[in-house]
Amino acid sequence: MISKNQLKLIRALGQKKYRKQHNQYLVQGEKNVLELLASGLTIIDIFATAAFIAQFQQQFTHVNMIEADEGVLTKASTLVSNNAAIAIVDMPKVTLPEAEGLILALDGVSDPGNLGTIIRVADWYGIQHIVASLDSADPYNPKTISATMGSFVRVSVSQVNLAEYLTQITQPIYGAFLEGENLHRSQLAQSGVLLMGSESHGIREDCAALVTNKITIPAFGGAESLNVAMATGIILDNFKRQA
Amino acid sequence: MISKNQLKLIRALGQKKYRKQHNQYLVQGEKNVLELLASGLTIIDIFATAAFIAQFQQQFTHVNMIEADEGVLTKASTLVSNNAAIAIVDMPKVTLPEAEGLILALDGVSDPGNLGTIIRVADWYGIQHIVASLDSADPYNPKTISATMGSFVRVSVSQVNLAEYLTQITQPIYGAFLEGENLHRSQLAQSGVLLMGSESHGIREDCAALVTNKITIPAFGGAESLNVAMATGIILDNFKRQA
Repeated sequence: MISKNQLKLIRALGQKKYRKQHNQYLVQGEKNVLELLASGLTIIDIFATAAFIAQFQQQFTHVNMIEADEGVLTKASTLVSNNAAIAIVDMPKVTLPEAEGLILALDGVSDPGNLGTIIRVADWYGIQHIVASLDSADPYNPKTISATMGSFVRVSVSQVNLAEYLTQITQPIYGAFLEGENLHRSQLAQSGVLLMGSESHGIREDCAALVTNKITIPAFGGAESLNVAMATGIILDNFKRQA
Repeated sequence: MISKNQLKLIRALGQKKYRKQHNQYLVQGEKNVLELLASGLTIIDIFATAAFIAQFQQQFTHVNMIEADEGVLTKASTLVSNNAAIAIVDMPKVTLPEAEGLILALDGVSDPGNLGTIIRVADWYGIQHIVASLDSADPYNPKTISATMGSFVRVSVSQVNLAEYLTQITQPIYGAFLEGENLHRSQLAQSGVLLMGSESHGIREDCAALVTNKITIPAFGGAESLNVAMATGIILDNFKRQA
């Protein structure tokens, strides 16, 4: 059973202020909780339906799952559906990535769903580190975690002063612009930074000034732009085909 | 001003049943309405804020915009925000595409947001026709239209018995599977069909049997799958780089 205090904590962790205060966040839904259980992340508490426990407790003996019925989980959850399990997790200490391989940098990507989708596609292409501007969406927002479909366990996100971070990079900094070099004709290094801006503002001035290679996804039709997550996936695919 | 009857109609067109009955649908938000105004589609009525009318009426004299304040538009709208204008539009007659160039086929893509995002990226890559299974999301769902970011004016979507449609195709039918040929190493024809399945069920048996070329987006990391819209964009990029 979920106690009143645990329920209160779960609700509070839906908000950034309390995530920061407790240094904890929520992982919800079967796919994300299963990836969490298989990861090395520190689980404080995990609440799950009897069916979930019957199916998975034996496989993951390092945590003791607390039974709760789906109605209670749904009421506790910040998500509308998919409430087989909810976990409270310690935020890992994220250190800035060493400049090795390709690092993804995000400038002002403020939508948590977009950030989560980017984490998922980054994971598909084997990118392990994302560096995001301070005003980017919270990587621990439940909507972000949900959209990662489990990839949050393999991709770290550091929020930093992005221009300051980029100033220290000595490798190529690729930036996605509408007027860059055709991505299909570009030589793409396998080490450095790929910088993506937000859909509404693009890459801002201070970061744009530090880009060494402007690239563009060639357009063949009438759409004016692509969603930032979509653009990130397409560009990563172009990088990796040269790997 | 919006009359009570017009308000009732707008509300009704949020539902598929009434869209079918009236043969009309809604286009909402500045970007989508501007694309609509610049297109050849038949607008029945358009309601907009004074600011929108002041800025755009002169540019589009073929329709008479009816002023409404933003509060009323927001109340009328099926969207949460972005309510500078709402239009009621006649459904165009969509005919099945001639097999020329690349046609996108969707099997059971039931999420309207995904369908809209697919229409947008199809438009980016110059794909003009999408053929979708009967149980795919409604192309005229307000969430679909909204996610297209204006691309609904350039891309037609026909809903058909997909297996029957594919049976008549004599050109290559590419299908996205987890165990197909590596997309980065495939020769991709510029004419034929690209078939995508839903995220949860993939391409179903009856359609899968008609696929001539199984392809796969190569994975480099730990994610198990990609969102169907993301996968569609990445595959289209691979097709077009060989154009």
